[in-house]
Amino acid sequence: MGSLHALDISMMFFAVGTLLVLARLFGEVARHLGQPTIVGEIVAGIVLGPTCLGAIFPAVGHAIFPLSGPVANVREGLSVLAAALFLLMAGLEVDLGSVWRQGRAALSVSVAGMAIPFGVGFGSAWLVPRWLGHQPVTPLFGFALFLGTAMSISALPVIARTLRDLDVFQTDLGMLIVASAVLQDLVGWMIFAIVLGTLGGEGRIFSPGATVAFVLIFAVVMIAGVRRVVDGSLPWIHAHTSWPAGVLAFTLSLALLAAGFTEWIGVHAIFGAFLVGVAIGDSRHLRRRTMAVVDDFVSSFFAPLFFAGIGLKLDFVAHFDLGLVLFVLITASAGKILGSVLGARAGGLGTRESWAVGFGMNARGAMEIILGLSALEARVIDERLFVALVVMAVLTSLASGSLVKNVLRRHTPCRLVDHLPARAFVPDLGDTTRRAAIERLAAALGAASGLNAKEVFAAAWAREELMPTGLGERVATPHARLPGVTRPAVALGVSSRGIDFDAPDGKPAQLIFLVVTGSGDERGHLEILADIARLFRSATLRQAAVAAPSGTELLALLRSGPALLEDGAEGDNRK
Amino acid sequence: MGSLHALDISMMFFAVGTLLVLARLFGEVARHLGQPTIVGEIVAGIVLGPTCLGAIFPAVGHAIFPLSGPVANVREGLSVLAAALFLLMAGLEVDLGSVWRQGRAALSVSVAGMAIPFGVGFGSAWLVPRWLGHQPVTPLFGFALFLGTAMSISALPVIARTLRDLDVFQTDLGMLIVASAVLQDLVGWMIFAIVLGTLGGEGRIFSPGATVAFVLIFAVVMIAGVRRVVDGSLPWIHAHTSWPAGVLAFTLSLALLAAGFTEWIGVHAIFGAFLVGVAIGDSRHLRRRTMAVVDDFVSSFFAPLFFAGIGLKLDFVAHFDLGLVLFVLITASAGKILGSVLGARAGGLGTRESWAVGFGMNARGAMEIILGLSALEARVIDERLFVALVVMAVLTSLASGSLVKNVLRRHTPCRLVDHLPARAFVPDLGDTTRRAAIERLAAALGAASGLNAKEVFAAAWAREELMPTGLGERVATPHARLPGVTRPAVALGVSSRGIDFDAPDGKPAQLIFLVVTGSGDERGHLEILADIARLFRSATLRQAAVAAPSGTELLALLRSGPALLEDGAEGDNRK
Repeated sequence: MGSLHALDISMMFFAVGTLLVLARLFGEVARHLGQPTIVGEIVAGIVLGPTCLGAIFPAVGHAIFPLSGPVANVREGLSVLAAALFLLMAGLEVDLGSVWRQGRAALSVSVAGMAIPFGVGFGSAWLVPRWLGHQPVTPLFGFALFLGTAMSISALPVIARTLRDLDVFQTDLGMLIVASAVLQDLVGWMIFAIVLGTLGGEGRIFSPGATVAFVLIFAVVMIAGVRRVVDGSLPWIHAHTSWPAGVLAFTLSLALLAAGFTEWIGVHAIFGAFLVGVAIGDSRHLRRRTMAVVDDFVSSFFAPLFFAGIGLKLDFVAHFDLGLVLFVLITASAGKILGSVLGARAGGLGTRESWAVGFGMNARGAMEIILGLSALEARVIDERLFVALVVMAVLTSLASGSLVKNVLRRHTPCRLVDHLPARAFVPDLGDTTRRAAIERLAAALGAASGLNAKEVFAAAWAREELMPTGLGERVATPHARLPGVTRPAVALGVSSRGIDFDAPDGKPAQLIFLVVTGSGDERGHLEILADIARLFRSATLRQAAVAAPSGTELLALLRSGPALLEDGAEGDNRK
Repeated sequence: MGSLHALDISMMFFAVGTLLVLARLFGEVARHLGQPTIVGEIVAGIVLGPTCLGAIFPAVGHAIFPLSGPVANVREGLSVLAAALFLLMAGLEVDLGSVWRQGRAALSVSVAGMAIPFGVGFGSAWLVPRWLGHQPVTPLFGFALFLGTAMSISALPVIARTLRDLDVFQTDLGMLIVASAVLQDLVGWMIFAIVLGTLGGEGRIFSPGATVAFVLIFAVVMIAGVRRVVDGSLPWIHAHTSWPAGVLAFTLSLALLAAGFTEWIGVHAIFGAFLVGVAIGDSRHLRRRTMAVVDDFVSSFFAPLFFAGIGLKLDFVAHFDLGLVLFVLITASAGKILGSVLGARAGGLGTRESWAVGFGMNARGAMEIILGLSALEARVIDERLFVALVVMAVLTSLASGSLVKNVLRRHTPCRLVDHLPARAFVPDLGDTTRRAAIERLAAALGAASGLNAKEVFAAAWAREELMPTGLGERVATPHARLPGVTRPAVALGVSSRGIDFDAPDGKPAQLIFLVVTGSGDERGHLEILADIARLFRSATLRQAAVAAPSGTELLALLRSGPALLEDGAEGDNRK
C-alpha cells in the first residue's frame, strides 16, 4: 500500500522528534542569554547536520537525516510547508493601515532604506561576481537583482519583537519602523519573486515574462480584491462554522492554495502564503485568538523544524568563508543603516530617532534566511554565499535590539521571575517573628545566590526597623541595598498564618519578598517592586503562590501566570 | 539541492490545501446535520479520491494526489504524523485515576465488553476466513487476533464527546463509561501491537517474540516510570522555558520519539504516541491551555488531513461488499452492546443505565479507522474488509449519541444561536413603541422563517399586554406560543436608545428578543429564555450585540462569545 517502509517511518519520527527537542533546548539557551530563539534553533540544526553529528558519526547522521530517498522527501515537504506557514504568520502581522498613517516618513525611510543597500548589493554583484559565488548557469542580471534584494530586505517579525521588548511598539517611532519594514517586505518579496521568475529553471511551465505578469496580477488581486472578500467573509465564517476550527481551516487552506499557485507560476510558494497573510491580517474581523493559535502552532512546531532543518542541508564550517562573511555583513549593514538614517532624516526625524530607525531596520532574521535558502535551492547562489547570508542575518538580528536600546537609552525592565532563584523559596516560614523571617530569607538567598547572608540580614533588618515594609493585601517586601551587588536577587517566604509587617490594611503578610539590589541600582529596585505589585494584585495568583509546594512550581506559576488564571482556580488545572 | 521539483512542491500545496478546505466544508455540513465532523472529513476524502474525482477526471486526480513518487511520500509522511498526533491527543484525554475510582464496575464492563465482541470476531475469523478476506501470507491466528481486536475496540474521543454533548460526562455513569473505554483502549492497543509484532513483515529488525517483549516493557516503562518523571518535570518546564512553546515542544517531541521507537520495534508508531499521551495526560501539572493548543492544532490541521486522506487510498464503491458490511456491522454491534450490558449488570447497574453503557461503548469512530488502516497497510486485511470496518465505525458513531440520549431520556438543550436566523435581526428598531417594536420583529421573523407574521404579532402582543416582558439589564423577551410551530424561532431587535418594556430595574430595553415556540413546547421555550439570560449576563456581550451591524456579525459574536470576551472589549479585537 504505502511507499514508506516501517524503517523509513521510524526514521522520520526520530528525525522530527530530535529536531524539535534540540531546537527547543538550544532555543531556550539562546533566550536565557537574551538572544532570539531562532538563533538557538539554527545552531541545533548545525549540531545535528553534516557540520557536527554528520562529521563525527556519519552513519548515524545518514540514517536519521538522509539526503535523498523517501525520508528526505518527507522532511523537505515538511520544511517547505513550514516556511510557507511561517510567512503566512509574518503576513498576518502586517498592518497595511499603519503604512498609510505613517505616510511620507515611512515612504522616505523605505525608499532610501531599500535603494542604498540594493544599490550596494547590485553593484558588488557586477563588480566581483566570481568572488561572490555567481554561478555561470544564472544570468548575471538575475544574480545581481537577488543580491540587491538580499541586502535590502528586512525582517518584520524580528523587528516587531524587538520593538515590543523595548516597549516602543505602540509609539510613533515604533509604528514608523514597522510601517517601513512592511513596505520593504512587500517590495522585497515582489522583487525576489520577479528574480525567480526571470530565471530559467528545470520543469518551468511559463516563460519569465508570463511569470512576472502573473506575479504582478496575483499581488494586485490579493491586496485589492481578496483582502476585501476576506474582510466580508470572516463574520460569515465566524457565524456559521465551529470556532476556531472554521477560521483556521479557511486561513490555512487559502495560504496553502496560494502557495501552490505561486510555486506553479514559477516563483516560490512562500510568496503566495505571505500575501494571503497580508490579505487576511488586514481584516478588522480577524480575532486575536486566531492569530494566537496560528502563532502557537507555527512557533512551537513548524518554525523550529524549518530553522533547525537549515543546518541539516550543508556543512557550515566547510562553506564558511571569513572574507565573504565580513564583506556581506559590512556592506549589508552599512548600506541598510545609512539608507534608513538618511531616509528618516529626510522624513523629518531627529538624529537620535533616525539612528534608532537605522539600527532597527538592520535586523534581517528569518526573512533573509528563507530568501537565501530559496535562492540556494534555485541555484542562484552557492553554499558559501548562503552561509555568509545566514551569519549576517543572525548577527544583525542579535545586534539590532541592543543598538536600538542604547541609542534610545531604553531599558528592559527587571522582572521578578528572572531574579528569584528556585532555591530561594521558603514555603514554610510558619508562625515566626518579622526578624526571624527576614533572617531565614537572608540565609536562603545567601545559599541560592552566593550573597553574604549576614550582610543581607543586617541591611534588611536595619531598613525594616526604620520603617516596616508591609504593602497590604498580605504582601511584604523587606529589602536591602548592598554595595558590590551587580544584579537584583529576591527570596520569597510563605507563611500561611501570616506575619505582621505593619501593613496599612492591618493584615499580616503571607508572601514575604526579600529584595536585594546594588546600592546605586535605584531603577532595578523600583522595577522589581513594581513587578511584585503588578503580579500579586491578582488574588488568584496570591492564593496559588501561598499553596506552591516548591520554588520550581512557584516559578512555573509566575512564568505562565495569565494562562493559569484563565484555567480558573488552582487544583482545577486539569481538563 | 532538494529532491522535490517545483511542480512537486506546488502539487503538494494544492493537495494539502484542497484536502483541508474540503474536509472542513464537509465537516461543517456534518455538524449542521448533528453528526460528528469526522464523518464529513472522510466523505471529503472519498470525493477527492479514486471513488469520485479519480473516476471522473483521472488525470486531475493523479496530478494532485499521485499514488507514488515524492509527492505521495510527503503526503504519506504527513498522514502518519497526523495519526500519531491524533493518538497523542486521545491519550492526553485518558484519565487513569477515573479507572481506579470506578473500580469493579469499570473492570466488569471492560472485561465483558471486550471479551464477547473479541470472541465473536476471533471465532468468525476461524470459521469463514476466506470470505472475510484473509490473505494467505498472514498467519490465520494473527488475522483472527486482529479481527477480535477490531470488533472489541472502542473510541474514547467519540465517546467522551457524546457524553459531554448530553451533559452526563461528569456523572457517575459518564465516568464509568469513560473509565471502561480507557481500559479497553489500553488493552485493545496492546493486543493490536502484539498482533503486528507476531506478523512477519518486510524490513523487520526484531523477531516476533522480541517485539512482543519490547511492547510489554515499553508499556510498563511508560505507565509506571515515564508518567511519574513527566509529573515531576512539568513544573520545571513551566518554570524555566517559555510558555507554551516549551511544554508543547516537550509533549510533541516525546510523542514523536516514542512513535519512532514503537515503529522501529515492529509495531505501529501510533501506539507509542498514544502511551506518551496517557503518561503526560495523567499529570496533575498538565494545564488545560496546553491541551487546548494541542487540540486546536490537531483538530484543525492534522486530523482533517488524516481522515480525508483515507478516502484517497482506495475506491470505496469498488470495494464495497454489502454482505460483509452488514456482517461486520451486526456482529460488532451485537457483541459489543451485549457484552457491555452484561458487564454493567454484573457490575451492579440498573437496566436503563446498562443499556446506556452498551450503546455508549459501541461507538468506534476514529480508533477503528486508524486500526483498520494500519492493518490494511501491514496487509493483515484486504480493501473489502477495510471498507466494511470504516462503514461500521462511522455508523456506530452516528448511532451512539442518539441511542444513549433516548435510553437515558436525555435531551440536548436548545441554544439561541441555532434558532436565530441571520435575517431575523433588526439592527435599528429606533425610538419606537413597545407595540411597534414587536410588530416589526414579528414581520422580520415571518420573512426569515416562514411563520405567519400577523399570528405571531397577535399572540406576542396579547401576552405582552397581560404582563410586560422586560427582564432588566436592558434585555426584553416578548414571546408567543403558537400551535403548529415545530421548532423555536427567535428574532432580535436592537434599539440603542432603548424601548420601555417595564423591566424590574426600570431601564429601557436595548436588546429585544421575540421568541416563538410551539404551544406544547414548554421545554424549548424555557431553554431559549435560559440561554438568552445566561449569554447576556455579560455586559461586554450586550454592548457588542447592540453595536453589531448585521445578523451575521451577531451570530459570529454568539458562536465565539467566550473567545471574543477574552479579546477584551470590542473594537480591540485586532492584534
